[in-house]
Amino acid sequence: MKGLAVGVWTFGMGSERYVSDGYKPYLTLEERVAKIATLQGINAIEVTFPNDVFPQNPGKFKSLLENYQLSVCGMGVELVCDKEWQNGSFSSADPKRREKAISLTKSAMDMAAELGVSTVSLWLGQDGFDYTFQEDYAQAWQSLVEGVREAANYRSDVNLGLEYKTSEPKMACYINSGGKALALAQATGKANVGITLDVGHALNARENPAEVAAMLMAENRLFHIHLNDNYSWADDDMPVGTVHFLQYLELFHWLKKMNYPGWMSLDLYPYRDDPIEACRTSIHFVSKMQNLVNSPKFAQMIEENRNSGSRSVRAVYEMLFGE
Amino acid sequence: MKGLAVGVWTFGMGSERYVSDGYKPYLTLEERVAKIATLQGINAIEVTFPNDVFPQNPGKFKSLLENYQLSVCGMGVELVCDKEWQNGSFSSADPKRREKAISLTKSAMDMAAELGVSTVSLWLGQDGFDYTFQEDYAQAWQSLVEGVREAANYRSDVNLGLEYKTSEPKMACYINSGGKALALAQATGKANVGITLDVGHALNARENPAEVAAMLMAENRLFHIHLNDNYSWADDDMPVGTVHFLQYLELFHWLKKMNYPGWMSLDLYPYRDDPIEACRTSIHFVSKMQNLVNSPKFAQMIEENRNSGSRSVRAVYEMLFGE
Amino acid sequence: MKGLAVGVWTFGMGSERYVSDGYKPYLTLEERVAKIATLQGINAIEVTFPNDVFPQNPGKFKSLLENYQLSVCGMGVELVCDKEWQNGSFSSADPKRREKAISLTKSAMDMAAELGVSTVSLWLGQDGFDYTFQEDYAQAWQSLVEGVREAANYRSDVNLGLEYKTSEPKMACYINSGGKALALAQATGKANVGITLDVGHALNARENPAEVAAMLMAENRLFHIHLNDNYSWADDDMPVGTVHFLQYLELFHWLKKMNYPGWMSLDLYPYRDDPIEACRTSIHFVSKMQNLVNSPKFAQMIEENRNSGSRSVRAVYEMLFGE
Amino acid sequence: MKGLAVGVWTFGMGSERYVSDGYKPYLTLEERVAKIATLQGINAIEVTFPNDVFPQNPGKFKSLLENYQLSVCGMGVELVCDKEWQNGSFSSADPKRREKAISLTKSAMDMAAELGVSTVSLWLGQDGFDYTFQEDYAQAWQSLVEGVREAANYRSDVNLGLEYKTSEPKMACYINSGGKALALAQATGKANVGITLDVGHALNARENPAEVAAMLMAENRLFHIHLNDNYSWADDDMPVGTVHFLQYLELFHWLKKMNYPGWMSLDLYPYRDDPIEACRTSIHFVSKMQNLVNSPKFAQMIEENRNSGSRSVRAVYEMLFGE
Repeated sequence: MKGLAVGVWTFGMGSERYVSDGYKPYLTLEERVAKIATLQGINAIEVTFPNDVFPQNPGKFKSLLENYQLSVCGMGVELVCDKEWQNGSFSSADPKRREKAISLTKSAMDMAAELGVSTVSLWLGQDGFDYTFQEDYAQAWQSLVEGVREAANYRSDVNLGLEYKTSEPKMACYINSGGKALALAQATGKANVGITLDVGHALNARENPAEVAAMLMAENRLFHIHLNDNYSWADDDMPVGTVHFLQYLELFHWLKKMNYPGWMSLDLYPYRDDPIEACRTSIHFVSKMQNLVNSPKFAQMIEENRNSGSRSVRAVYEMLFGE
Repeated sequence: MKGLAVGVWTFGMGSERYVSDGYKPYLTLEERVAKIATLQGINAIEVTFPNDVFPQNPGKFKSLLENYQLSVCGMGVELVCDKEWQNGSFSSADPKRREKAISLTKSAMDMAAELGVSTVSLWLGQDGFDYTFQEDYAQAWQSLVEGVREAANYRSDVNLGLEYKTSEPKMACYINSGGKALALAQATGKANVGITLDVGHALNARENPAEVAAMLMAENRLFHIHLNDNYSWADDDMPVGTVHFLQYLELFHWLKKMNYPGWMSLDLYPYRDDPIEACRTSIHFVSKMQNLVNSPKFAQMIEENRNSGSRSVRAVYEMLFGE
Repeated sequence: MKGLAVGVWTFGMGSERYVSDGYKPYLTLEERVAKIATLQGINAIEVTFPNDVFPQNPGKFKSLLENYQLSVCGMGVELVCDKEWQNGSFSSADPKRREKAISLTKSAMDMAAELGVSTVSLWLGQDGFDYTFQEDYAQAWQSLVEGVREAANYRSDVNLGLEYKTSEPKMACYINSGGKALALAQATGKANVGITLDVGHALNARENPAEVAAMLMAENRLFHIHLNDNYSWADDDMPVGTVHFLQYLELFHWLKKMNYPGWMSLDLYPYRDDPIEACRTSIHFVSKMQNLVNSPKFAQMIEENRNSGSRSVRAVYEMLFGE
Repeated sequence: MKGLAVGVWTFGMGSERYVSDGYKPYLTLEERVAKIATLQGINAIEVTFPNDVFPQNPGKFKSLLENYQLSVCGMGVELVCDKEWQNGSFSSADPKRREKAISLTKSAMDMAAELGVSTVSLWLGQDGFDYTFQEDYAQAWQSLVEGVREAANYRSDVNLGLEYKTSEPKMACYINSGGKALALAQATGKANVGITLDVGHALNARENPAEVAAMLMAENRLFHIHLNDNYSWADDDMPVGTVHFLQYLELFHWLKKMNYPGWMSLDLYPYRDDPIEACRTSIHFVSKMQNLVNSPKFAQMIEENRNSGSRSVRAVYEMLFGE
């Protein structure tokens, strides 16, 4: 693993549909970066293109990073958070919308290359449907395959990470599971199309994060990871470990075991919580769990107790809390 | 049933956490009312206090209603949509917050009496918790019981309708099911505390709306109803009937059978849909289903097929689509 | 808390709808009791009436207990696991079925009194519906209230614990949440009607076990507890702590804080796991978590970090794993 | 579409974990077939290998079919319903288990060819895990890919249909979504590996059946369909249309639109319902909805209202119930 980063949106206003102006004041990108730089254990940020980076002036963005001694671990393309995308991006029935999405992705890939970022994430949260009988699913799937393929063909030195999510903002999203994202990546026939695994999204899709991560690593398509937690039904984006404990520990075990080569980003949305505290809670948990899975004794214990029913879990708890 | 109304928030901007400035322009209350007045089959609006009504000038609000020949079917107290409530209202650990919530509710009750509104709804969406170990549940429950009782004691000619919801905006809300709301109403010992049943919230709580409505009517505590639909997991607030068909038909059957004495309001949140269209879709569905359940033949058919397994459903479909 | 027990059904064959003859051989009651007696940390069993106890010969059952130095912590009434109950028990449209359910419950109460068992649990898993339009919900609710009241009136020295569950075996069960169970208990007007809280059922109902337990204790109606774990959607009856960690810790904290006066039983269904191992995994987890919540330092730490956002969780993890 | 069939397991005893000897008497295969033959609108059965067919005497099975003038629409391989498979089949850590699964599948393919059955379904309900830290996910995925590929290589004139399911009997199954099944099919590199879509399983995976069917047809990998309904959370196997109405109508619309070339089977499990009634309810619903989607007017109306928000749904309801 390359390290632990923070998505700059974690320091946003916390807007939602009831408190639409958020629970907190607006912070500029520099203010956010300054706060993130104070967090021990964090050495990179994740940003969204073109909102957070400055295409016309990448130098300015680079000096911001230098000032705070942070690197950029990943970059998402903004294809959701403006109403212009409300009828979809890569899957839209309108060829002009699709062209704009592809074009924006190519620009993001260029910027990523300039900044040394290996993976551009595509979260297509407006590509889906609200109602039955609303969309042409066959056209949508074909457009997704062709559009992502075209972007991937643009330059093979930058990866595209499909960030799947069951729903929201569209009531139902097309790329709704790790399997669907993998199938789409395979259908493009491109090795630089893979997955950005958001752990909370995996939980919403009734997946076990460790299992889906292992499958994606076995297929060489796990490119990036977003960390957060939730109560299973919705994408609560809570601090890591505040709900799921063993599943997170198992995920970290598998990332270590299969030498996951990428970054992990904190992707939190602390509506009513202080983002600094939300990050600290996450960093503390990740750090303690990493220490554990990095110990050879832990790895050996896991292998010894495989296929032994609930002993597999008791062995973990015995190592943590004594016999 | 008294009639079908529309909540004025249905004509809002459609803000959400990704598109925080919404999918639509802001409309004033009068603009919203003017649009609602064009909808055939609607003869009332539902509003929130003190945002939509004008405590200092109720006459202005009354003439607005008169101009558009609409009445007010219900009124909610605003205890969620401002960050001042982020640590709760009736259940807050802070006595001043509780006092303000109770005081605001009393003012809403006065205004309701002046406007001829029988039920003031209490949706306590910030009363709950985000994390474990965050809240004192025993104090919260006691504060809820005592606070609601105090408000109910203030004047017995206005009902309080507890609008339960599983989660959101708080990750977990205290009044999270029809049963919990009924238990709280009973615990106050007041006959004017009952339930505002939001059908979408019932579906999120894994309830069957008809069943919970019948139970609440049997206890004389079903005071108001919000209509909307969703895909079961989250409060999508979609037009009525766009997901659930038989469950809605069964709900209307039971409301007719037990002579539900209140109103039904469309409580929609059409992010990417035109609110006029969302209302029309709902009104069309409600109207067709009402026609059905109002026919003596339908009621007789239901009784004849009770306790007959899936024949109960086939009989409904045969009446709708032929044998 | 009185102690930790094991439900004898935990040592059943593990039958399910696909492997209907189960994953394990049948064990007699004595064989089950003999196995349970080997478990360190267990000093009681929970049984079902009249299957496991012998109404005609209670002495035989008593000597079985004496031989193995175990007591009986609780008793359920069998109103689900025979097809005779397929149309319901206390809520049935058939008065004879209701009478039999009430009569069986009274016999169970007598037997409980003789055995020194304070609570008889009523899990009404066949009282509900499969299809819409199948049941008369108003009659069902009234029958539930009246039937449970009649049983409770029979003798006030034995408690009745309503064990709620969202669904299964009926697709939808009437007593489907902690709130509904509390509302039903209150509606009977009897102080000896309360709740048997099954933690897995609470999780399926999207409840936080600690929160519902605290509310029920505040109302003096938490009579008995079943421990098990699941992946949120279905009643998996897995060993305690194999999925939920913090929620279980918080539950134990609140039981300690409010001096829960009853028992906790392991209610497991280890289809493919060895029941001895499933119990040991559960006992180990419960024991370690109890040690923690029993320490004054832990209780103090929880109070100090209340209402502090995710710090409340970080403080717990810091105590467990260091800062 | 080739026609509508019934799975013979629909006429089983209705065993489940509470009523393990079922709600109904055992019927022999011939008794089941005789009952199915009475159902108007059904012209085929679906069976499981080797339980329902007789490898040593296929002639006997053929004459049974001839006697009742039924054909066989599909065949599943039994890899779940015996405890021998409790640690998995194709994904097992034990090579002997994997070999047996592959070998049994090859035999089923031979039998299918002899009976003129085009698709053998693989439902791998024991391939997954109950607990975290129990399984080697990388080995499991690799074994799945290689094992299914080997079976597919055995003969290219018979299709393999992967029947995905989120959980049950294993708490979590590997092939848990339409996307995952498609990814696995693609990973084998074989054109005769595709999907058996069980509509209820799709709903449990939070999929829209029409959407996943269209995607699979676009990839030429939708081989077979199981019809049943549920309340979203568990695999209730209820009659078709008893819960989901519009989603079913939309599915049938897309099957018609994309000329689905396979069969649909009723895959019901009517615990407490008469299987004849459960089939009749399903057949009535399917027949009425098929009539609708087969009308050119309906198809035209759908296309005209695409991308029009909830008008898409209102247009459907207007055609059904008048404007």
